Amino acid sequence: MERDRILQTLSFKRGGTVASIRLPSAGFSITIRVAVTADASAIGRVTTAVGEAGAIVTALDVVDSDHVRVVADLTCDTADSKHADQVVEALKALAGVEVRKVSDRTFLLHLGGKIEVTPKIALRNRDELSRAYTPGVARVCQAIAENPQDARRLTIKRNTVAVVTDGSAVLGLGNLGPLAAMPVMEGKAALFKRFGGVDAWPVCLDTQDTDEIVNIVRAIAPVYGGINLEDIAAPRCFEIEARLRELLDIPVFHDDQHGTAICVLAALTNALRVVGKKLGDVTVVVSGAGAAGTAIMKLLLRQGVGNIIANDRRGVLHRGMPDLTPNWAWLVEHTNRENYSGDLAGALVGADVFIGVSAPNILTGDDIARMAPRSIVFALANPDPEVDPRAAREHAAVVATGRSDQPNQINNVLAFPGVFRGMLDAQAREFTIDMALAAAQAIADAVGEDKVNPSVIVPSVFDPKVAPAVASAVRAVSLAATGAPLDSQVDPSS
Amino acid sequence: MERDRILQTLSFKRGGTVASIRLPSAGFSITIRVAVTADASAIGRVTTAVGEAGAIVTALDVVDSDHVRVVADLTCDTADSKHADQVVEALKALAGVEVRKVSDRTFLLHLGGKIEVTPKIALRNRDELSRAYTPGVARVCQAIAENPQDARRLTIKRNTVAVVTDGSAVLGLGNLGPLAAMPVMEGKAALFKRFGGVDAWPVCLDTQDTDEIVNIVRAIAPVYGGINLEDIAAPRCFEIEARLRELLDIPVFHDDQHGTAICVLAALTNALRVVGKKLGDVTVVVSGAGAAGTAIMKLLLRQGVGNIIANDRRGVLHRGMPDLTPNWAWLVEHTNRENYSGDLAGALVGADVFIGVSAPNILTGDDIARMAPRSIVFALANPDPEVDPRAAREHAAVVATGRSDQPNQINNVLAFPGVFRGMLDAQAREFTIDMALAAAQAIADAVGEDKVNPSVIVPSVFDPKVAPAVASAVRAVSLAATGAPLDSQVDPSS
Repeated sequence: MERDRILQTLSFKRGGTVASIRLPSAGFSITIRVAVTADASAIGRVTTAVGEAGAIVTALDVVDSDHVRVVADLTCDTADSKHADQVVEALKALAGVEVRKVSDRTFLLHLGGKIEVTPKIALRNRDELSRAYTPGVARVCQAIAENPQDARRLTIKRNTVAVVTDGSAVLGLGNLGPLAAMPVMEGKAALFKRFGGVDAWPVCLDTQDTDEIVNIVRAIAPVYGGINLEDIAAPRCFEIEARLRELLDIPVFHDDQHGTAICVLAALTNALRVVGKKLGDVTVVVSGAGAAGTAIMKLLLRQGVGNIIANDRRGVLHRGMPDLTPNWAWLVEHTNRENYSGDLAGALVGADVFIGVSAPNILTGDDIARMAPRSIVFALANPDPEVDPRAAREHAAVVATGRSDQPNQINNVLAFPGVFRGMLDAQAREFTIDMALAAAQAIADAVGEDKVNPSVIVPSVFDPKVAPAVASAVRAVSLAATGAPLDSQVDPSS
Repeated sequence: MERDRILQTLSFKRGGTVASIRLPSAGFSITIRVAVTADASAIGRVTTAVGEAGAIVTALDVVDSDHVRVVADLTCDTADSKHADQVVEALKALAGVEVRKVSDRTFLLHLGGKIEVTPKIALRNRDELSRAYTPGVARVCQAIAENPQDARRLTIKRNTVAVVTDGSAVLGLGNLGPLAAMPVMEGKAALFKRFGGVDAWPVCLDTQDTDEIVNIVRAIAPVYGGINLEDIAAPRCFEIEARLRELLDIPVFHDDQHGTAICVLAALTNALRVVGKKLGDVTVVVSGAGAAGTAIMKLLLRQGVGNIIANDRRGVLHRGMPDLTPNWAWLVEHTNRENYSGDLAGALVGADVFIGVSAPNILTGDDIARMAPRSIVFALANPDPEVDPRAAREHAAVVATGRSDQPNQINNVLAFPGVFRGMLDAQAREFTIDMALAAAQAIADAVGEDKVNPSVIVPSVFDPKVAPAVASAVRAVSLAATGAPLDSQVDPSS
């Protein structure tokens, strides 16, 4: 079929396996305005051509028509930008069809940005103005000056998080800088509100200097009840996070590290239930020892994992490697019990779990076949996983990816909204590894023990139980550690 | 009357004039929950007592009642916190009345803060998620990386302003720091949206170091289409503004300077219409040569004022004064044509206009009496003006203040929402003095020439014509200076 041909040209082979799968998705949805001759089969020829080009028609709206012509908006999911172009070309090649305009729905959605700042108060008349602004506001300022803790009840601080990036590691795209990072940070802010009721604001910094970033975040902190670091390249992100934790009295959370680690531990908890193994007994091979991989390994070690073998660009981390960063030196010390020093494929032989947070298509189905029986594969590189999940599924008992079009999507949206909801509600002063463990357990438990199976090891991101369960778990850990939250009772008398 | 007695105790005398006027206002509105015996006159005794204590009852809601008792919420405007306490004490002194709770409506309104971050997009299902966030968002990031100008159409930058403070000069309250400044900045953000449709975000900085502030604002700028500096003490504010103008490609506006100057010029334009004098002919005495005063004087000089005499803590600025700051040296050079070196009261003799942006109660009615005939007095110190406006009105033809309970309130809300609306719409790269002049003219003209009179020299802040007129004027100036705005056409095809 024509569609298979297109998919074929979109994928490529490597090591005998189909390495890339690109199926049409809503992320690449386009709307094509066409004018066609008004015969009975005209529209049919158009939709057929779109289908034959490998796209999926999701909507057809007639915009205008007369005796000789029909103008229609045809919306379809495509695989990527190149595929979208091919679909349009296929329509242009049809006799009696004129392509007038092609709109990309993703770009349309982004016009003017994705968040706004909205007053929570009415400003209809002078009375309301004089309470929200001068002269009334002066008393509120003075109250906070006298008792700084009052900022938590009289300002947005109690519910507001900064989403901070320097644009140095935007998604998997690399160092795009602060402007190009904005759509991600705005999206994150939208997700924070949608899933956690948290007000989040993008802070996209035009600097990639560690000292400057630390200094800036310290200085802007009064407005916020928490800091979410995002898409900052390793190893800079580690130092920034560590120094900010020292400096600030609000929690600092690097989502690429801790959010990912929480979700991976949650997924692994349920995957181990599926295969009937215990964390203390398994060997885990982790590909990628950057921000995400390091945090995953630290959390697994804290939870008592049997053994970990870490692999990065320089190969498997082992004792005796020269020129290690402090971070890698720590990993070398705490992983690789038998000091294996071969390659990644060799490390996988007999391993129980593979966790990839690295690069696309570095493994084949054959590599997975050499793992221990009932193996678990988390191939999380995005958009293209470390191994084709279809090939992996032939050999592993449980396979998860970061993709929304595959079962078992491991998505940070499961963690960060609830984690911050819980920390804000507890007025937490720091994010702790105990909170991470509690959050992971809450996510794992949200699936329901009777519902766990090889295709369902994490809940849906739209499951409304998840964020409240995570928030409740995190809040409980925080309060157990620090006692009751600082007085947040409403006492509005001045 | 009892009420007059209370007002008398709240005011104080200075130089033979009643120097302070504190009338009940909504900014100091309280709600008192009282339980009273259920006889026919019980509620009446309570409201009478409140009235006799000088407060104004604005609402009475019965919360609960039985055969022996009525519980009611009584809301009343008071003059200030001390007066509110007196009102409560007066009720407590009544037989058969129990005061259960006193709520301050201004504090109630501030609980949890005054603004929130709201998604402009729906996130109901996986399709919408994949367009607003990964994987779809990656293409938008790449488009901006390739063409940074696209940030203006694909992110919030096009409509977003930072409200930046270091908390060093919060209202008239002084150096309260960044936390205590938040209620003002949040209020400002709410006003930006309400009056200008602008998304504004509070940036309250925990530093008062000029270099740091400049560096931080430069670094956070990618998110914003404009910077509004707020409540930063002079002379630091001048250097910060000047350096940021050099560094940034978005407009930098210090509201305490430029917003005030625009509103004062607008008010003076109409006040001169009322008294039939021309700007080029008048002598203006300005008390206060800080941020606001300096900006007012620069704008009046640019508009061709006859003569200015500037007064600050050290006295009237004149040539030969030692140890002048660069700012004051500039003022000395451009004002005080006859190099008068006496005191403020002496400077006023024969002057046409007094503009005070300084301290409360520094002048008496007698000082105003010695000005030229048909004099104009803008006593803008807040909450207590430089001269009692009632005393000033006995001698001056036009009197304005910053107070909402007096005619001719000169309020920056008239300027900043429209100024930023216009600059954002024009994608302006800087704020210019020509924009300030155009904005002032638009505000003055919004009154309508036939409606100008001694009590109406500025439009109401709730006049819906004002912000669009200001925006249109500012936009026109910007476009005339720089040509058409950078392409903001919608071309959503990728």
